[in-house]
Amino acid sequence: MIIMGVDPGLGTTGFGVIELKSRKPRYLTSGSVRTSPSWPSARRLAEIAGKLREVIVREKVDCIAVEAGFVGQNAQTALKLGQARAAALLAGQLEGTAVHEYAPREVKMALTGRGSAAKKQVQFMLGKMLGLTFDSGEEDISDALALAICHSLRSQVVVSNRRHRP
Amino acid sequence: MIIMGVDPGLGTTGFGVIELKSRKPRYLTSGSVRTSPSWPSARRLAEIAGKLREVIVREKVDCIAVEAGFVGQNAQTALKLGQARAAALLAGQLEGTAVHEYAPREVKMALTGRGSAAKKQVQFMLGKMLGLTFDSGEEDISDALALAICHSLRSQVVVSNRRHRP
Repeated sequence: MIIMGVDPGLGTTGFGVIELKSRKPRYLTSGSVRTSPSWPSARRLAEIAGKLREVIVREKVDCIAVEAGFVGQNAQTALKLGQARAAALLAGQLEGTAVHEYAPREVKMALTGRGSAAKKQVQFMLGKMLGLTFDSGEEDISDALALAICHSLRSQVVVSNRRHRP
Repeated sequence: MIIMGVDPGLGTTGFGVIELKSRKPRYLTSGSVRTSPSWPSARRLAEIAGKLREVIVREKVDCIAVEAGFVGQNAQTALKLGQARAAALLAGQLEGTAVHEYAPREVKMALTGRGSAAKKQVQFMLGKMLGLTFDSGEEDISDALALAICHSLRSQVVVSNRRHRP
């Protein structure tokens, strides 16, 4: 199964793709889509959705995991985040992948066992699992990979639960 | 020129299509796309974008006008509105129409000459211009038609400005 995690943002959207083979996650690719605040909204959204669709097709992605929820209080920030998130969700839907959403707390919990874990801790666990290191400023990419890993762990739980049913 | 106005909402998205022929707007069609809160976000967004794309193709829409801005304070409401708006903007972009955004104040100003006009006043002007009447609960449709009319008035200003250039 090939999983793409997406950390959406109107300015920068991070993505990370992993393959899950015999329960072990393997890193495939990652990157970010950047758009200019000077572009009209429609162009920014088309850029995000378009680039994500390219990656889905190229990497033969089976399902995508997108960050859900919003913890801030600023309505204008939420409005922009909602737009970027919709572009990611629609990219998955248009390419026929399964689409899942996880709140930041769920992702941190799945990777570190603590819902309030720091980003550094999440990056440390990603490093151990995928053999990667992250520079500062790459939080959008590490967040995206964490979403992919979170989904891989969740789907394994489902599989093993099923195995125990009569 | 065929113009579609869109008043986006995750639960109900209104649309209204008019034709502008020798400066006179003519009503073509209108309606709304409804989605259930029990559906996953991706399905709700795909429903909105998909239905709007159908109308764009069927009515040969040249450009769409989408409501911009958000006046409330609630971040969760803004997040949902942002998602619905992105679905509308992407529907236009994917079908190759021009995409314009207008704030509610601009629309009211264009139709009634007053940025703080009541919905009833906007509906009264729409009735005069398009020969329509609206029932209560049809605000999503009248708002969408008002956006289309607003764009038609704006594009006429541009045309007549151009005519006076040397």
